[in-house]
Formats: sequence, structure tokens, C-alpha cells
Amino acid sequence: MKSREVHLNAYLQGEPKPENFSVVEADLPAPDIGQVRVRNTYISVDPYMRGRMSGRHTYIAPFAIGAVMEGGAVGVVADSEFDGLNPGDHVMSMYGWREGYTAAGNTVMKIDTQSLPEQAYLGIAGLTGLTAYVGLKRMIDLKEGETVWMSAGAGAVGSAGIQFAKAMGATVIATAGGAEKCEYVKSIGADHAIDYKATDDLAAAIRAVAPQGVDAYFENVGGTHFTAALEVLNPRGRIAACGMIQRYNDAEQASITDNLTMIVGKSLNIRGFIVSDHMDIQGDFVSDLTSWMMAGKIQPAETVLDGIDQAPAAFMGLFEGRNTGKMLVKI
Amino acid sequence: MKSREVHLNAYLQGEPKPENFSVVEADLPAPDIGQVRVRNTYISVDPYMRGRMSGRHTYIAPFAIGAVMEGGAVGVVADSEFDGLNPGDHVMSMYGWREGYTAAGNTVMKIDTQSLPEQAYLGIAGLTGLTAYVGLKRMIDLKEGETVWMSAGAGAVGSAGIQFAKAMGATVIATAGGAEKCEYVKSIGADHAIDYKATDDLAAAIRAVAPQGVDAYFENVGGTHFTAALEVLNPRGRIAACGMIQRYNDAEQASITDNLTMIVGKSLNIRGFIVSDHMDIQGDFVSDLTSWMMAGKIQPAETVLDGIDQAPAAFMGLFEGRNTGKMLVKI
Repeated sequence: MKSREVHLNAYLQGEPKPENFSVVEADLPAPDIGQVRVRNTYISVDPYMRGRMSGRHTYIAPFAIGAVMEGGAVGVVADSEFDGLNPGDHVMSMYGWREGYTAAGNTVMKIDTQSLPEQAYLGIAGLTGLTAYVGLKRMIDLKEGETVWMSAGAGAVGSAGIQFAKAMGATVIATAGGAEKCEYVKSIGADHAIDYKATDDLAAAIRAVAPQGVDAYFENVGGTHFTAALEVLNPRGRIAACGMIQRYNDAEQASITDNLTMIVGKSLNIRGFIVSDHMDIQGDFVSDLTSWMMAGKIQPAETVLDGIDQAPAAFMGLFEGRNTGKMLVKI
Repeated sequence: MKSREVHLNAYLQGEPKPENFSVVEADLPAPDIGQVRVRNTYISVDPYMRGRMSGRHTYIAPFAIGAVMEGGAVGVVADSEFDGLNPGDHVMSMYGWREGYTAAGNTVMKIDTQSLPEQAYLGIAGLTGLTAYVGLKRMIDLKEGETVWMSAGAGAVGSAGIQFAKAMGATVIATAGGAEKCEYVKSIGADHAIDYKATDDLAAAIRAVAPQGVDAYFENVGGTHFTAALEVLNPRGRIAACGMIQRYNDAEQASITDNLTMIVGKSLNIRGFIVSDHMDIQGDFVSDLTSWMMAGKIQPAETVLDGIDQAPAAFMGLFEGRNTGKMLVKI
């Protein structure tokens, strides 16, 4: 049995390009004792992966060169020599951009596909959803009746966060690039949608829809979005920052307007976070998510490309805003 | 009886200049029932006052034009028609840049000059000291054995913070402008002193003395200091920001290097604060300060100019780094 997989060719600066990746065919051996052989159904591409392509050790090690790109994936067990997993079981793994793998059964997690579609475990019910939840609940401590600005509202974390914030009783302003995405963020519950590409004064556009000001900002973008947030936040405003995609491909450091004195003048609290530091909140997350889904408050959204060879294009598309909701590759 | 006082002539942009202020002679009437007449001994000039000169309402109202500059002052009761204050009592008030005032006795606070010199109530034992304390204790939550970088270490808040952080068992890196101030910050306990004017790579200079990295940064400066702090902070580093003097006189917004993705990658927590939101910590502050002083760990430091007509010069001197420790005007 064979499996095609995607390798990273070299560490890179600037925007990722197709030539940074190779599609390679590999053997998919029958499982040894304790192993399973899995056929992936969906793989995840995520902005944080850009950091692992730079060769610098940040909070996570760089990808290995000439090896498969690691990342979230869901699939179906084809053969099993592991107690507790049977052919036909759905599993989630971090084995990444490949059509299948053979691996120890205790390194994958069985998932329940009765109540949720399998790919939701890569999105709203997985680390993506958990990221939105940690930001709103633990970093921002969002209260009913407050106004929150969700940046990259049509993205994976943003679209989850809009729906969670509405379920928490907040007023939600979402920013997104283009009219179509603005329609989308409204369709999932945003009270106000602002096309950041159609304005040259983002702070003024936010103020126009939120004359009462903004209590919290969920940062996925950085740069000009960040400086606008400092402008529009109310005193004691909070920022949760889990990503700044506007900056990930910069080969050299950019400049921004220095309005950081707002941090002092308004007593702002800015908290960067990495979801893996907050896994202890998982129980609350599952409980809240389940009740919100049962109340019909959550619609998972995905942009899906077909075929393992599309993984690099799906990944590069994240930086061009090609996705609405979670970007996935269907195998 | 007469009192000279300093008025603000108009709201201003950019650097404050002597012509922004007028010295005016006013009557100092005998006290009515419930009032006291006070002769000031010291008045306080503080960086935050710059914000009140811009005419914008931030967390505090602008100064009134053509009226006395408000601010902290200590003095001696000359005449009293208020129960509980007698001639000769020392009092603290917010009546500002004037030689004396007549005011309701319940709007001033009697101070104990047995254990502390009266001017300490405008500095290390007053709001200045409390600001350093709130930043280290509540915002940063400084732990014994951690390394903290105190910016503007020779300033009023910075010099208090260096001594408090040492008393808390931290390693202290202090930045200051010029060799003389660097000598001073070492004399009050800083483990390392860096002359920021003598380096064009502040982050590298910090790293050279703190190869183990920096756990917390106390922000009094902003701009290039802030971006250097993001560089040198360890994962889960904390920033307390109570001022950014580098920016206060900017008429137009400046730019800085955008390295804000460090906030995400290192899970930093940045907290702006205003001391008046944290008066509930006063009891802890007095208790800690008293025990530190009794242990000989605290040396108040002041730069004193003479005469009410020197108040504008003292204030303007803050932005030129003319003070070591708290800047005061002796009346």
C-alpha cells in the first residue's frame, strides 16, 4: 500500500511558494503489534505552521527538512493490531500532510462521529475552536452585554469566536476582507461586519458601528489592526492575541504607528497565549460547545480543497484570505 | 496674605515651554469655618501632568486654562478653623503649584513626619512609590529569584521600583540615561545598569547582562524601550506599564518596529495601569514599605528646585531627564 505525503524542502523567508514543498510517495506498511494503519480523510493547514517553516525554535520546534509536514489530521482505521481500535474507527492524529500512516495506536485519538462530523475535530471542536474559547473565556473574560471585536472573522478561529461570543451574550463586531466574507460573518451571527480592505481608517469604521466603544479585541491579524484596536478600546479593555497573520511572512521587520501609550492611558490588558498551555479548560469547552450546538447556536464552516497535492495551495491560501472558516484538505 | 501660583495658559502640543505657564499672585484669605490656611513646603511635578495639558480627556480631566496647576503638595497648617487640624500640622493635598491655599480641612490629609520626611509623601511613600509597588506586586506579580528590567531607573517611579524589587528578592537590571545616573541606580541596589544613550542596540545590551533572559519589564519609557523589552523577555514574561515618557510630547504619532508577534510567540502579558485604580493595595504597601525601611533597604532620593517660579522648569526637566529620583519644588 502506498501513501503520498508532502515534505518541506528547506526553511524559508517571506511568502511560502509551491517550490518549497514536494509531494513524495511512501510505503504504508501493514501494522506491527500495537500499531494501526490509517487512511486520512481530512488534513488541517493552519497559520501557526508558518512559524515552524522558518527554522527558528519558538514555542514549538521547526519542521524537519525533507520530512512530512506535521499537523492535525482525521482518518479511518484500515487495519489494526492495537487493542481498542478497530477497522472503521475514526481517529485524529498529528501525523500531518499525508494520505495515510502506520503508527502506534496509542499516539492517535478515537473520535465520536455521531454527534459531530469528523472534520469538526480539526476545526470548531478541535484546537481551532479551543483557541477561540481560551481567548474569549480566559484571556478576555468576556461578559454578557460587552462588545467584542473579532479580527479575521471569516477565518477558522475568528468564525468560531464570533459564534462563541454571541452564545456568551456579547455584541460582536467582525472584520474580514471583502464583501463576500462580510456577508458570511453576518450569516454566522456577527452584529456588525466591516470590510477592512474597503476602509483606510479602520478605527473610524469600528467607531461608526460601536459608538459605545469596544470592550475587548480578539487579535488574529496584528499590524494596523492592532493599532486600530488600541484606538477603539474602552478603558480597561482586554486584548487576547493568539496570532498576527499580517506579519508571519515578513522577511524584514515592518513598522507600525506607535500609539502604545493607549495601553497606559486606558489601563489595557494584552495577553498573548498558546492554546497548548490551556488544555485544562478542555472540559469546560466541551461542555459549553455541546450545549451551544444543541441550542443550534453553532454552524461549523469549512473551506475544503481536494487531494493531498493541494495541501501547499491550501496553506498558502491562508495568507491570501482564501478560506472562509477552517481551511481543510480532503483526501 | 498672598500666595504665588502657576497657571496653565493654553493647551499645548509638543514640548512644554516656559511661555505655556504664568506665575500669578493670588490672595490667601483667612479660613472660614471648616477651612484651613496652608503654607506649602514642597510641590510635586510629574510626567502624567503632560497628559492633562493636551486638552484631551483621558483617564483624568484636562487642566483648566488660566487656573492653578493641580497636583500633589505638602505643607504646614498656618491657621485652622477645622476640627482635627492645628497650626503646625503637616498636610498633603492635591492643590498643586502654589505657595499656599485656603481650603476645606477635609480635603487635605494629615501626615506623620516623625518616621518619614514630609516630602517622602510626594515620592517613595506617596503615589510615586505606590505606583512602583502596584506595578511590581499586582501587575507583574514579581517572584523572588526572577529578573526584572526597570526602565527610567533613575526616575521617581524607577528608583522606587529598583529598591522595592531588590527587597522582593529579584535581580534588577536598570536602564538610565548617562553614566552619572547609571552610578546612581547601582548605588540604590540595581545589579546591572545600562546607559541606553550609550548603546544603539538596547536588546543586545540587556541580553549581555542577563543571558538567562528577563522575566518582567517595568515600562516607564515606551518606544524603542518597549520593542527591546519584547525581544528580551522570556516566555510568559510580564510587562507593567504606568507611563511612556518617550512619547508624551509627540505632536504627531511616531512609528516603531513592529515586533508585536513576540506577544503571541512568548505568551506575554502586558498590563497598563493607573495607580488610582489600585488604592485598595495601600495597606499592603504601607506595611511592606515600613518593614523595608526599618531593614534599611530604602533610600528616598529627590531632585529639588527652589521657589514656586521654578515649577515649570522642574516639570520641563522631567522630559530632559534632569531628575534623579523624585522631582520636587521646595517653596
